[in-house]
Amino acid sequence: MLKFFISYLKGLKMLPHLDENNMPTMVDVGSKDETLRLARASGIIKMSKEAFWIIKNEKAKKGPVLQTAVIASIMGAKKTSDLIPMTHPLLLNSIKVDIISLDEEFSYKLIVEVKTKGRTGVEIEALTGVSIGLLTIYDMIKAIDKAMVIKDILLEEKSGGKSGRFIR
Amino acid sequence: MLKFFISYLKGLKMLPHLDENNMPTMVDVGSKDETLRLARASGIIKMSKEAFWIIKNEKAKKGPVLQTAVIASIMGAKKTSDLIPMTHPLLLNSIKVDIISLDEEFSYKLIVEVKTKGRTGVEIEALTGVSIGLLTIYDMIKAIDKAMVIKDILLEEKSGGKSGRFIR
Amino acid sequence: MLKFFISYLKGLKMLPHLDENNMPTMVDVGSKDETLRLARASGIIKMSKEAFWIIKNEKAKKGPVLQTAVIASIMGAKKTSDLIPMTHPLLLNSIKVDIISLDEEFSYKLIVEVKTKGRTGVEIEALTGVSIGLLTIYDMIKAIDKAMVIKDILLEEKSGGKSGRFIR
Amino acid sequence: MLKFFISYLKGLKMLPHLDENNMPTMVDVGSKDETLRLARASGIIKMSKEAFWIIKNEKAKKGPVLQTAVIASIMGAKKTSDLIPMTHPLLLNSIKVDIISLDEEFSYKLIVEVKTKGRTGVEIEALTGVSIGLLTIYDMIKAIDKAMVIKDILLEEKSGGKSGRFIR
Amino acid sequence: MLKFFISYLKGLKMLPHLDENNMPTMVDVGSKDETLRLARASGIIKMSKEAFWIIKNEKAKKGPVLQTAVIASIMGAKKTSDLIPMTHPLLLNSIKVDIISLDEEFSYKLIVEVKTKGRTGVEIEALTGVSIGLLTIYDMIKAIDKAMVIKDILLEEKSGGKSGRFIR
Amino acid sequence: MLKFFISYLKGLKMLPHLDENNMPTMVDVGSKDETLRLARASGIIKMSKEAFWIIKNEKAKKGPVLQTAVIASIMGAKKTSDLIPMTHPLLLNSIKVDIISLDEEFSYKLIVEVKTKGRTGVEIEALTGVSIGLLTIYDMIKAIDKAMVIKDILLEEKSGGKSGRFIR
Repeated sequence: MLKFFISYLKGLKMLPHLDENNMPTMVDVGSKDETLRLARASGIIKMSKEAFWIIKNEKAKKGPVLQTAVIASIMGAKKTSDLIPMTHPLLLNSIKVDIISLDEEFSYKLIVEVKTKGRTGVEIEALTGVSIGLLTIYDMIKAIDKAMVIKDILLEEKSGGKSGRFIR
Repeated sequence: MLKFFISYLKGLKMLPHLDENNMPTMVDVGSKDETLRLARASGIIKMSKEAFWIIKNEKAKKGPVLQTAVIASIMGAKKTSDLIPMTHPLLLNSIKVDIISLDEEFSYKLIVEVKTKGRTGVEIEALTGVSIGLLTIYDMIKAIDKAMVIKDILLEEKSGGKSGRFIR
Repeated sequence: MLKFFISYLKGLKMLPHLDENNMPTMVDVGSKDETLRLARASGIIKMSKEAFWIIKNEKAKKGPVLQTAVIASIMGAKKTSDLIPMTHPLLLNSIKVDIISLDEEFSYKLIVEVKTKGRTGVEIEALTGVSIGLLTIYDMIKAIDKAMVIKDILLEEKSGGKSGRFIR
Repeated sequence: MLKFFISYLKGLKMLPHLDENNMPTMVDVGSKDETLRLARASGIIKMSKEAFWIIKNEKAKKGPVLQTAVIASIMGAKKTSDLIPMTHPLLLNSIKVDIISLDEEFSYKLIVEVKTKGRTGVEIEALTGVSIGLLTIYDMIKAIDKAMVIKDILLEEKSGGKSGRFIR
Repeated sequence: MLKFFISYLKGLKMLPHLDENNMPTMVDVGSKDETLRLARASGIIKMSKEAFWIIKNEKAKKGPVLQTAVIASIMGAKKTSDLIPMTHPLLLNSIKVDIISLDEEFSYKLIVEVKTKGRTGVEIEALTGVSIGLLTIYDMIKAIDKAMVIKDILLEEKSGGKSGRFIR
Repeated sequence: MLKFFISYLKGLKMLPHLDENNMPTMVDVGSKDETLRLARASGIIKMSKEAFWIIKNEKAKKGPVLQTAVIASIMGAKKTSDLIPMTHPLLLNSIKVDIISLDEEFSYKLIVEVKTKGRTGVEIEALTGVSIGLLTIYDMIKAIDKAMVIKDILLEEKSGGKSGRFIR
């Protein structure tokens, strides 16, 4: 309990997006170094067997559902600073999207890797790309399955910057 | 198996976002009626005990983390047709966001309800609002917890339009 | 004092952009009628004598500073729902911008009139157009005057909708 | 000569995007009827033999270059009122994109058809979709051909509205 | 008079946003140094006593009106290059917003401070943030006061860059 | 024939916007140098004699049609990374637009020059500026000429970066 309280207090002081009046603020990254930074995030969309196989079969033909998701994911990651209020505009060096099928669970896993050279990390960019990509799959399939679930959107890896490397 | 195959074929014909050349397309909604349509979607962000209580305590004071999420969620829902490639621009009549805390699992559940009078449904608008809202919480808390998970983004209810009412 | 208190309480109940949890919300306009609505707003930018006459002289030649402001004003008014969090996306029927010079005070007055047929008023669209137009003049002149002031941004007239006509 | 002068004068009066002060303005469409409107526009990108065949061969496999162009074209058409200053925001009912190969001239022709029910036509939406789609092909191929030319962007057909049907 | 004429001519030559054909242009900042730059701007919204106290009382509770304004202000500052035609896209290091109440005049003053490391100043970013923040307060309160005035939007301080420090 | 085949194969390997799974990707420019880069692109809009002279005559008066096109062109170039899916966000140092009249062919030629210091070229930014500028002229004139053609959008010059200088 004491341990929780200590890490709670420590966390409280670390909330950078609130200023001394408890108002939202955009953190000053001016004193941070420009370093190479990478983030890789992923997420899953689970659907009915039918929906899964319809996409799977068209995938063999470089299907338009997954390609549309890849493109939306890249464009969505570029829009992050427009969508998430306290994020900094960033110049991204690369965005790479992969989609793999999880046949047993009738699911697709979408992975986005973002790289930049800048003063702040790109995990939100990667996570935003994942979210927009999965929503795009949802949108294109929703006519045949209204019960899909998007889940397990999380950070896989992050490197560069002061806080060091993070691997899940 | 036969049943699966039949519903697979039926689904295949229903994929409205692909045209006869298997290219992505924006469905023609010109023949659909302008009806009142509602969609309610939700999603969950699970975090560490510390992160959860930091937000929880400030919530008692109408905390800025959750308020920022509510605002980002509303603004994100309005941007849906910009983000999800095959969606139609829509005039939304209302967007309402709620966040409830799930104390046992150290999670917050964000719920977005969207209403319109139009020719196509608003479930993607509600789901986009949910995603952007949860990503905003993630962004503001990520300095104290890098292992958060966004999960269970799904459609709770949908009404209006030809396909009738859907309740999970 | 009692009178103030009564109108205060009345006002409190009328704050439509807060929901029952005191969270920001996008008002439900579904029950409002689609009527013709008009709003006209204006604002002023005051500058040095030199800056004023430089613009004034080029205006005789359909000068680019004021024309750029007119165009930015129209494009800005169209972006209102992207900028002001709780506003509804709207189909605007017309946007008209006028700029008149106030020679005695070395000022320009920019007026924007917006019309729509819709479920909610367009005063914020007109005011946003005014603000963006004045900022554009500021931007193009700032190299020769850093002490300009933008002032008196206000609603001149509003009609259509339940609350009736307003003229300042 | 007289005939030219008469049609010149007639044209001058018809320039709707300039107001009485010769300032750009957004035409008032409030008095126009809400009718079904369609526009179909097309344009061509001409490239080297090598570039053409690289795309052509991958097209057989539903290639990503042309699919990316189709998606960018649809998203671009939706952004028209953000890009072209005097255009009205519009609710589009459908956007359909086709790309055909012109083998003899090592060119691709991109065709966009837009439909709406509204108070103003959608030819600029269709033409913007064409332009963005062709620029996307250019972008993805530019590493192997810097001398490509985008040409013949034009309106193929337009119907609905007061000015009647136009077919090239 | 002569003095005016000289500074007029000097100013004329300094109008960087017009090219040699008197057409608007985006200034070439390529030869400017990348330096730390700061700008602080402010503006005021004046309202009725009732409206003022409704916001004031909720402010004690970290009220949503002012918080929404803070968030809109930050997001608006990030959109500057999208809104003001001749501005350069910029990477902002920080955006900080403060709102103070001026009780005697029933007004709120909104202050935005922007920092960047770049080739051009950020005063327009700060002023745009101020404008969007004040418009957001206007929007959320307009149901109870149609006669509000936004005024005194001005640059408080600017530093970095060739033109040196400016303090009002 | 052999020569074609060799350059075809060489080209195939150089398609940077496709990854090893033949999916669209945003090229990693992290290893490229930050150098000064310039691109100049142009395009032509051909119209009827009447339309041409209406613009031409107002041009003498710094006409609003061409000025609107210049402004739209600059704003459009800034939006490139939002419009063309695989492009990188870039900080542009300058954008300069020129329009010259081609009297014999009743055409206007629009030229955009973009400069940056960055890790990737700006030809798509220049070409996007050209396209949006020409579409703006089209939009403002379409009421008097529905048969206009936009043509010859091409790269005039490009310098900076590994691939060296290109002049058409």
